[in-house]
Amino acid sequence: MTPLKVFTDVQADQESIDWLRSAIHPHELLQPTVKAASVLSLAPDDPLVAEADIILGQPSLSSIALAEKVRWIHISSAGFTRYDTPEFRAEMQGRGVPVTNSSHVYDQACAEHVFSFMLAQARVLPAALASHCANGTPEWTALREGSRLLQGQSVLIFGYGAIAACLVKMLNAFDMHIVAVRREPRGDEGVEIVTPDQAASALAQADHVVNILPDNPASRGYFDAARFSQMKPGASFYNIGRGTTAVQEDLAESLKVGHLASAWLDVTDPEPLPEDHPLRHLPNCHITPHTAGGQSGETRVLLAHFVKNFHRFLEGSPLVNRII
Amino acid sequence: MTPLKVFTDVQADQESIDWLRSAIHPHELLQPTVKAASVLSLAPDDPLVAEADIILGQPSLSSIALAEKVRWIHISSAGFTRYDTPEFRAEMQGRGVPVTNSSHVYDQACAEHVFSFMLAQARVLPAALASHCANGTPEWTALREGSRLLQGQSVLIFGYGAIAACLVKMLNAFDMHIVAVRREPRGDEGVEIVTPDQAASALAQADHVVNILPDNPASRGYFDAARFSQMKPGASFYNIGRGTTAVQEDLAESLKVGHLASAWLDVTDPEPLPEDHPLRHLPNCHITPHTAGGQSGETRVLLAHFVKNFHRFLEGSPLVNRII
Repeated sequence: MTPLKVFTDVQADQESIDWLRSAIHPHELLQPTVKAASVLSLAPDDPLVAEADIILGQPSLSSIALAEKVRWIHISSAGFTRYDTPEFRAEMQGRGVPVTNSSHVYDQACAEHVFSFMLAQARVLPAALASHCANGTPEWTALREGSRLLQGQSVLIFGYGAIAACLVKMLNAFDMHIVAVRREPRGDEGVEIVTPDQAASALAQADHVVNILPDNPASRGYFDAARFSQMKPGASFYNIGRGTTAVQEDLAESLKVGHLASAWLDVTDPEPLPEDHPLRHLPNCHITPHTAGGQSGETRVLLAHFVKNFHRFLEGSPLVNRII
Repeated sequence: MTPLKVFTDVQADQESIDWLRSAIHPHELLQPTVKAASVLSLAPDDPLVAEADIILGQPSLSSIALAEKVRWIHISSAGFTRYDTPEFRAEMQGRGVPVTNSSHVYDQACAEHVFSFMLAQARVLPAALASHCANGTPEWTALREGSRLLQGQSVLIFGYGAIAACLVKMLNAFDMHIVAVRREPRGDEGVEIVTPDQAASALAQADHVVNILPDNPASRGYFDAARFSQMKPGASFYNIGRGTTAVQEDLAESLKVGHLASAWLDVTDPEPLPEDHPLRHLPNCHITPHTAGGQSGETRVLLAHFVKNFHRFLEGSPLVNRII
């Protein structure tokens, strides 16, 4: 078998790249000479891509168009908005090129991150960690009374995918009432599924609304003033999907008037939010800078996920995390 | 049956007291005229206690000595240091007076609280919530690299009781390696149990050390410089038992030199810590003011727990949360 050529624009330290090179040996690793500014930005087109049998990373569409020999594309993120168009799907399907992503690399970390938000909210951690109050004082009583048990509460999840499946496993240990919204229920989700047209009544009953929607034309601006007003007074809103799926001015207004108890956001639009953005100045809005998917040794985990799929590709086994 | 007299020094709003009164009707509720300063402080002795068949609250030992007719004592806290002496046990056993506590009221809340600590640590929430960094910056990479998955990590629990049992249920959903230290293993714990003489080697292997020890002569100062140095470099220490079980100067030193990654404390000695205490000024020490057991409607939950046990008492059923 002629050695395959794997083109990657993934940014990694030399040790990780060396590891990848030896892990795919005797197949060949090709790297661009010019690098992208970040894992979430476009890499410049590289003529080298024309030689690639496999692409690993965040290739631009124009770069993929140049890759005449490509037989498989593995995206190095969980989000794949750039590739989530009918045109691109049709083109890849027409060329017989499977596309996979890295959602499994990030699903547990993202689920743990949103769960840390939910528990921090339940235990009023931001206020409790800042308090130096004495037992028995009014401030102390207010903190204890402001605390909640997750046990027995209800959660509504938008976007039932790999992250949600991890999250549900955790929530089950807390005896929570779990409902997920999914356009096309499959029946194997293990939780109560409602369709988007039932969202309003589901929103009215949830203590916690978890948004894991990807960015696409249908989800953009989905959480707006109308949806926030449908939520139960005192509910909390979590976003670990994409910032564009919530109308941030509407969210700020709902938090300001106290209809929602709190928002916990790992994603915003833009990232980071400007310093003068209203959401930055609300005490009940808590923001982490798109770190939900992070974990120690993340690059190595990402590359190892690719290598596993690479072996599947060589064996002709079904690829993991296939999106097209 | 002659109506029983239930003496209580529990501090509650009038509505809750009225609820309790009607819940135990036709039995009678007696309340002291002078109240304690807090739920954790001693109520002054009250001559009324001499009439009590049942005591609910935090009675002083001298008050109990006055209670010649008492047939059952229900403590309104989970901790019971004051009553945890061989002399008191012998006296109550001799008089045939069962003593119960309220641990079930607090176990889930305490377990959720320490779990919120563990997840906040894993997701570096204090730093991530404070950061306004952009994707791809060194600060962002450091936050993502500093994040951990709880999944697959190890936890060592000191003090295997009701809180630990709740916690273990949660940890299991994260596929963690769980070990608990218990003086007298019963074999029904559902996790690996080691005895205190095996603590040193267990400490050397745990990513998370959870201290739920009560305060007693054996536990006082248990976590000292020697124990902290036995812990794995980079481990985190959690205390939701009693502040007296850790030597705080030793903990501060271990945090300062970076042997321990962090401490998360809901209890300290004293409470609150003085403003100039070293633990207050370490960025890797996170303190909540003894709010772990708190929950909305806590007093009502506490009284309902007593009422359930009251019905058991009337029926002659075994009492729940019996400690003597």
